[in-house]
Amino acid sequence: MPLQTAKGVRDIPPEEKMLKNKIVSALAEIFELYGFAPLETPMLERYETLTAKFAAGEASDALKETFKLKDQGNRELGLRFDLTVPLARFIAMNPNMKLPFKRYEVGSVFRDGPIKLGRYREFWQCDVDIIGSSSMIAEAELLAVTQAGFRKMGIDVAVKVNNRKLLQGILLQAGIKNNLEEAIIAIDKLDKIGKKGVQEELQQRGFKVKEIETVFSLIGMTLTALKSKVKQELALQGLKEIEELMSYLKALEVNVVLDLSLARGFAYYTGTVFEAYDTKGQIASSLAAGGRYDQMIGKFLGGGREVPAVGLAFGLEPIMDLLKLRGKIDTKSMMQVYVVPVGMVKEGLNVAQQLRDAGVRTGFDVVGRGISKNLEYAGSLGIPFVVIVGENELKQNKVLLKDMTSGLQQLLSIKDVVKKVTK
Amino acid sequence: MPLQTAKGVRDIPPEEKMLKNKIVSALAEIFELYGFAPLETPMLERYETLTAKFAAGEASDALKETFKLKDQGNRELGLRFDLTVPLARFIAMNPNMKLPFKRYEVGSVFRDGPIKLGRYREFWQCDVDIIGSSSMIAEAELLAVTQAGFRKMGIDVAVKVNNRKLLQGILLQAGIKNNLEEAIIAIDKLDKIGKKGVQEELQQRGFKVKEIETVFSLIGMTLTALKSKVKQELALQGLKEIEELMSYLKALEVNVVLDLSLARGFAYYTGTVFEAYDTKGQIASSLAAGGRYDQMIGKFLGGGREVPAVGLAFGLEPIMDLLKLRGKIDTKSMMQVYVVPVGMVKEGLNVAQQLRDAGVRTGFDVVGRGISKNLEYAGSLGIPFVVIVGENELKQNKVLLKDMTSGLQQLLSIKDVVKKVTK
Repeated sequence: MPLQTAKGVRDIPPEEKMLKNKIVSALAEIFELYGFAPLETPMLERYETLTAKFAAGEASDALKETFKLKDQGNRELGLRFDLTVPLARFIAMNPNMKLPFKRYEVGSVFRDGPIKLGRYREFWQCDVDIIGSSSMIAEAELLAVTQAGFRKMGIDVAVKVNNRKLLQGILLQAGIKNNLEEAIIAIDKLDKIGKKGVQEELQQRGFKVKEIETVFSLIGMTLTALKSKVKQELALQGLKEIEELMSYLKALEVNVVLDLSLARGFAYYTGTVFEAYDTKGQIASSLAAGGRYDQMIGKFLGGGREVPAVGLAFGLEPIMDLLKLRGKIDTKSMMQVYVVPVGMVKEGLNVAQQLRDAGVRTGFDVVGRGISKNLEYAGSLGIPFVVIVGENELKQNKVLLKDMTSGLQQLLSIKDVVKKVTK
Repeated sequence: MPLQTAKGVRDIPPEEKMLKNKIVSALAEIFELYGFAPLETPMLERYETLTAKFAAGEASDALKETFKLKDQGNRELGLRFDLTVPLARFIAMNPNMKLPFKRYEVGSVFRDGPIKLGRYREFWQCDVDIIGSSSMIAEAELLAVTQAGFRKMGIDVAVKVNNRKLLQGILLQAGIKNNLEEAIIAIDKLDKIGKKGVQEELQQRGFKVKEIETVFSLIGMTLTALKSKVKQELALQGLKEIEELMSYLKALEVNVVLDLSLARGFAYYTGTVFEAYDTKGQIASSLAAGGRYDQMIGKFLGGGREVPAVGLAFGLEPIMDLLKLRGKIDTKSMMQVYVVPVGMVKEGLNVAQQLRDAGVRTGFDVVGRGISKNLEYAGSLGIPFVVIVGENELKQNKVLLKDMTSGLQQLLSIKDVVKKVTK
């Protein structure tokens, strides 16, 4: 079998690609409605752009999985592993660009990592970022985009929100001063391994029972209750941010749930974090996620520049999986009608053209086969209707419409065919 | 300057990307109207899939410019250099797929070649192919797609059509038996270097004056005139094909011009060839081109399979250049309105949300700046209208709409703002 795909990559066959296109164009419409502009960056970057020296947080992990190559001038290149590094590079190359910069990008990224079910070495990311604002208005806008995006796709989501400063401050207030990141990673697992699991993990990692109990009592509170308990400075700052965010979300009529255990794995998040889940629980992984990362782009650019940023990423793969589960692919075929001429190719082409002019997605027998072979072909492609163009029918200015589901045949004018197949 | 793009690649900034998205979605709509389904193949292929052993014609040239890399399992990979090889591989991997297979694909391809003006190492191709039909109906359908695609984009094109069998047969009839391909390449330059230039080149290449004269007298004829003069078998076959094609095109109301000198450079074309040009001549290169390549996919698949194919490629770069020349980018900005709250962030967000609900692409001050800084920002982004949300205006259930072109300000209800900015 010499002709195979490379390991870890795959073809997106027509049925799936149609769905993917629908999702991407629905989301793009929403992004633009909210004032985001599209950007396209190349797949190929200089390897030095991708190296850890410039990047912060996740980037250094991703770098181990970066596909490396050379051009004919022996320059070291890499395939991009995310859309954030190219965005930072774009900002660096356009120093006169007016901030805030609101952009979205949908495109392939590459990671030469281990292959698991549903994990590919070439996959799509769909990122929406606001660069250059430290105001909570920015995250409010991104959460509004999240809600509008899922509404557009007909998916009910619950959106969890938290603030890393608040969580970190709570830990500090509980007396945890070292290995904060370790504690955060354990607490982030609350949903997956439960309270008991997290408590055990924290104890194993050497945190004291008293500390753990204080943390759990605080993260179990409502925002109002928490306000009277929180003393630690960073926690107070986080609390203020989240209250401000909540007030904007109310104005935008955006529904979120505060989850004080939410941390999102990545170390580069500096404030607000959020995740969107399918309310019906059909898909366990998050469908969208994001947060504020005020330090990453600045570190990447160097020169002491501070560039606050907040980003949102839609998970195209889990969204596609969910829509497939819900049967949102209504037809196997792109074509609404398949036209089969009986001896009368030119007249048949003319009929096909009339249907297309009326906006009907129309296929045509380009091989010149007999009726039964054509019906078999149309059936195998899942095309719902076949139009047969024969001499006798045309004399009456009509064609034969065959409903491939019921098998029923009707003699109809082109106008009535259009009505029938588009209703 | 450490942060630069890799050599030969580039960012597509928002204004340009918007135009590109418009072109791609307009074309995709037409492709689907004509019964083509989208396919997505990966950028990464096994290197052996890309090697000349499997491929025919252009592929072997392209291979020299193939970016080569290895995955962590030390497997040799390459970045695809066109969309035809992945299509052939897809067909090989899906032997039970029903033919004809009508697919389109739009995506990046990579060539590590010399960098010239307008030539990039990473660029997009936009391919439409019908695999599995040897009938002229297939090219008729592709030429109908060509016409419909350019109509949709508002571009007038002249489409030249020829048949390689006819051209080759004419050469044979003129007595040229050796170096046919050389003669064809010279004749293909007729448009660029003129009749005299081609004649000189043919003489330099050793073709006889008599032969050259006969060729020119034949390719100068109309189809009707040619019919009585052509005797050579291959030429007769080509003539028959082109006549059949012309009759289908008439039925489809597709306009083309026969150009007996047209050959298209690539050796893999076996019959019909065509190219579309801007009628106004603002862009010299072809805007779309294609032809029949009956041997390439079969050779690629091996095992003696014969897979007739005909394809069409739209040149996204020259189309973008042409639309830019014609000023089809009507605004620098994606946003129709930019909302600036004066002290009243929540009320401002609510106004923004109402505008979005009404379908207006709306930005919002996510930084919290003063009015003058905001107006400067909106101006620099080319946003046509700014809505100022202040306390006094809101008391009257109104907002201030500033027309950024005229500078005029009006106190309007949200409803009237929507009317004003969308008209």
